Amino acid sequence: MTAALRIGLAGLGTVGAGVVRLLATNHDVIASRAGRPLKVTAVSARDRARERGVDLSAFAWEDDATRLPQRGDVDVVVELVGGADGPALTLARATLAAGKPFVSANKAMLAHHGLELAELSDARKAPMKFEAAVAGGIPVIKGLREGTAANRLTRVYGILNGTCNYILTRMAGEGLDFTPVLAEAQAHGFAEADPTFDIDGIDAAHKLAILASLAFGTRPDFPSVRVEGIRAVSLADIVEARALGHEIRLVGRAELLEGRLLQQVTPALVPAAHPLAAITGALNAVVAEGDFVGRLLFVGAGAGAGPTASAVVADLIAIARGEAGPAFSLRAQALAPARTAAPEARVARFYLRLQVVDRPGVLADLTAICRDSGVSIESLSQPAARDGTTRVVMVTHDCAETAARHAVMAMAALDSVAAPPLLMPLLPLEG
Amino acid sequence: MTAALRIGLAGLGTVGAGVVRLLATNHDVIASRAGRPLKVTAVSARDRARERGVDLSAFAWEDDATRLPQRGDVDVVVELVGGADGPALTLARATLAAGKPFVSANKAMLAHHGLELAELSDARKAPMKFEAAVAGGIPVIKGLREGTAANRLTRVYGILNGTCNYILTRMAGEGLDFTPVLAEAQAHGFAEADPTFDIDGIDAAHKLAILASLAFGTRPDFPSVRVEGIRAVSLADIVEARALGHEIRLVGRAELLEGRLLQQVTPALVPAAHPLAAITGALNAVVAEGDFVGRLLFVGAGAGAGPTASAVVADLIAIARGEAGPAFSLRAQALAPARTAAPEARVARFYLRLQVVDRPGVLADLTAICRDSGVSIESLSQPAARDGTTRVVMVTHDCAETAARHAVMAMAALDSVAAPPLLMPLLPLEG
Repeated sequence: MTAALRIGLAGLGTVGAGVVRLLATNHDVIASRAGRPLKVTAVSARDRARERGVDLSAFAWEDDATRLPQRGDVDVVVELVGGADGPALTLARATLAAGKPFVSANKAMLAHHGLELAELSDARKAPMKFEAAVAGGIPVIKGLREGTAANRLTRVYGILNGTCNYILTRMAGEGLDFTPVLAEAQAHGFAEADPTFDIDGIDAAHKLAILASLAFGTRPDFPSVRVEGIRAVSLADIVEARALGHEIRLVGRAELLEGRLLQQVTPALVPAAHPLAAITGALNAVVAEGDFVGRLLFVGAGAGAGPTASAVVADLIAIARGEAGPAFSLRAQALAPARTAAPEARVARFYLRLQVVDRPGVLADLTAICRDSGVSIESLSQPAARDGTTRVVMVTHDCAETAARHAVMAMAALDSVAAPPLLMPLLPLEG
Repeated sequence: MTAALRIGLAGLGTVGAGVVRLLATNHDVIASRAGRPLKVTAVSARDRARERGVDLSAFAWEDDATRLPQRGDVDVVVELVGGADGPALTLARATLAAGKPFVSANKAMLAHHGLELAELSDARKAPMKFEAAVAGGIPVIKGLREGTAANRLTRVYGILNGTCNYILTRMAGEGLDFTPVLAEAQAHGFAEADPTFDIDGIDAAHKLAILASLAFGTRPDFPSVRVEGIRAVSLADIVEARALGHEIRLVGRAELLEGRLLQQVTPALVPAAHPLAAITGALNAVVAEGDFVGRLLFVGAGAGAGPTASAVVADLIAIARGEAGPAFSLRAQALAPARTAAPEARVARFYLRLQVVDRPGVLADLTAICRDSGVSIESLSQPAARDGTTRVVMVTHDCAETAARHAVMAMAALDSVAAPPLLMPLLPLEG
C-alpha cells in the first residue's frame, strides 16, 4: 500500500459532512479500490462551531479555504462550497495554480468558468474532476467522458433537477397544484427556502451546459442555454397531458442540429412509453444517443448527501489511481467554441394552453393566428367555461419553435386571452 | 499528438467488422478523445477470403492469431474470437505474457479464467479490459469498477441477455408461445442457430459472474452461479404473471447475504412498477445498489455490432490515455475467494405453476405438501380444466428457496401432477 492521498475539504454542509462520513464508513473498500488510503487532513467552512454530526477533531481547521492548497499535508482539494464565483472560484484557481488536483460538485462554477479552469488544469497538469456536479450519484460524467468516447453523440437529454421532478410527479400523483406542493417540498427538505435556481430551471441549465460540453467536445456555454422553469405548469396541464398520453417533465436537452448546438431546459410532454415518463420523485435520468452505441439511459438519485458523496469519492479514487485525464474529455485547447443553433432549427410538436374569455369568435381568432404563423393544429380542446373564462389546449403538428412562439405572442396580445399562454414541446418517443 | 496506438485484432465476425468500421468512421473524435490516433495494423481470423463489408487491405494478416502480440507493429491486442478456452485463451495468455494490453468481449473466458488472466495482467503490468463482455454498449463495467467504487454494494442484478428478453417480451406482446417465437428470433438473427447458451441462461451467468466480481471484490466464480433458463416459461405463465401485476424477465442477480455470495440466473416475476419491467426487446439493463449511492440503473443495447464495438473502442481509448488500472477493480491478489451462500439463505415470494389431473383431492394434497414444507400460500388459482388436466398457480409468502424447492419436488412425485412444475421467484419492488 502506497502513501495516503491527503484531502483538504472546503465546505461542510450536507454533502461535505456526507463525504467525511463516507470516507470513514467505507475506508477499507475505498483504500483497496484506490490502491491507497484516502484521508482527510484539513477542513474549512464558514462556521467552525456548528454541529454537523461528524467528528472533525482529527482534521486541521482553516478559516480561509484558499489556504488549503498551500498546506503541505494536502494533496487534493475538494470544493463543496457552492456558488459560481466568490470563494469557490478563488479556491479552484488557487488549487489548480498550485498544481494540485481539484474535485468539485459545483455545477454553477463549472458551467460559467469550466473552460478557464480546464485550461488551468491542463497547464498545471493538475486533474480537475466533477462527477458530483451533474445528476448526483449517477456516473454520467464518466459515462459520457469515457463510456461513449468512441461515438459521435447526437443528443443528450434528461431529467436533471430532482426538486422539479418531485414537484411535478407529486402534483400528478396527489392532484395538487404547484403552490401547495412547493410548500410541502420545502417543508420536507426537497426544495430550498429560495427555490428559484431549481424551479426556474437554472440548476438544470448549469448541468446541461456541462453535459453538452462532454458530449460534443465544445466549450461549456451556459449563456446559450434557453431556460424555462415549471412555475407556469398547472395541475390542469398535467391532467390534459395525461389525456394526451403524456407526462410533464422538466427536460434539459442538448443536440446538434446541422452541426450547431441547441441547449434547452423546458417543461415538456413526454410520451407515457418513453423511459423518462417512468422517472418519478427526486430521481434524475440522463439519455445519451451515439452513432454506434445507440441510446443509453442512466438513472439514479440526483441529489442528497449519500449519492453526492459517492460521486465525489469516486473522483478521489480516480485521482488516487492516477486515472484522471483532461477535465472535459478533450484537452481544453481542443474544445471547440459552440456554434449556437438558431431557434428556428428546433422543430417539434407543441402543446399550447390558453385561458380565454368565453365569447363567440375567440377560437376563430386563435386558429387564424396559427394559420398566419404557419402553425398547423393537430388537435384542439376547449372544456366547459367557468367564471366566464375557458381553457383552450392545442397540440400542433411539427413546426419550428419560432413559428409556435410567434403564434403565442400574437395570441397573448388578444383582448380575449386572459392570462399568459403556456407553450411546451412534445418529446418524440424515439428522442 | 503522440504516436498512434497500434491494434492487432483477432476475430472478424460481426463485432470485429464493427470495430474496424467504428475506428474508420469516427477516427477523428476517437483520436481527439484518446489523445492519439487508434490504428489497426494487423488482423487475424479463420477465413481470410470471407466478405465482411469492410476494407482490410491496409492491415497485415496473420493466420495464427497468437502471433499478433509478437508483432512489433502491435501495441494492444483485441480478442473477438469467443469461446472460454481454445484460441481465445491462448491469445489472452500470449498477449499478457508479452506485456501488451489486452481487450476482450469474451464473457465466457473471463467468467472461467478471469482470475488467472488478471494475475497475469498484474504481473506483467499489461492492462486487461472487457467492457464489451457485459451488456454490450452500456458502460456498466466502468460504472461498477469506477462509478460506484466508494460504495459497499449490496446487490447487482439485471437483464443480461437480449435474446431471452426479446423472446419473453415478444411472447407477451404477440400472445405467442415459446417455440414459434424462438424460431422467429432465429430467422431474424436475434437468436443463434444453437440458442442453448442464451435461452438456458449460461450467457447471462457468465456476465453475472463478472459483475459479481466487480461489485463485491471477489474472484470470478462461475461454477457457483445457479442457472435456469426460459425454456419452461409458457405464454400461460406470462398471462398469469400479468394478472398478478408482474412481467416475466430472465434476471441475473448477485447479492451478499450475511457476507456470503448468492449468484442466480432465473426467470422471475418483476413487479410492473419495477424499472426492469419496462425493459423490452433486446435491451439490457443493470441495477446496482450501494450503501451511499442508493439504486443506479443502466439501460441500453446489450448486443449488436455497433454497441459492442463502442464498448471495445472505449476500452482502447482508456488504454491510449493510460487510464486502465487493474482488471477487476482490485489487484488480482486482493480479490477474495467468494464464499457461496447456502440456498436456504435466499428468501423470496415464489410463483409455482403445476399441471395437475382434474380430480378431487389434488388441491388438498398440494396444500398439505406446502404445510409440511413450511411454505405459506398467499394466493392460489385453478382455472377450468381442459382435456382432463388443469393448471394450478400458487404464490407463496416469503419463504426460503430450499423450502419452496422441497415442496416442488414432493409435488412432482405425486401421480396427479402431470408435468414438471415451474418455480420462479418474485422480485420485490425495492430490489
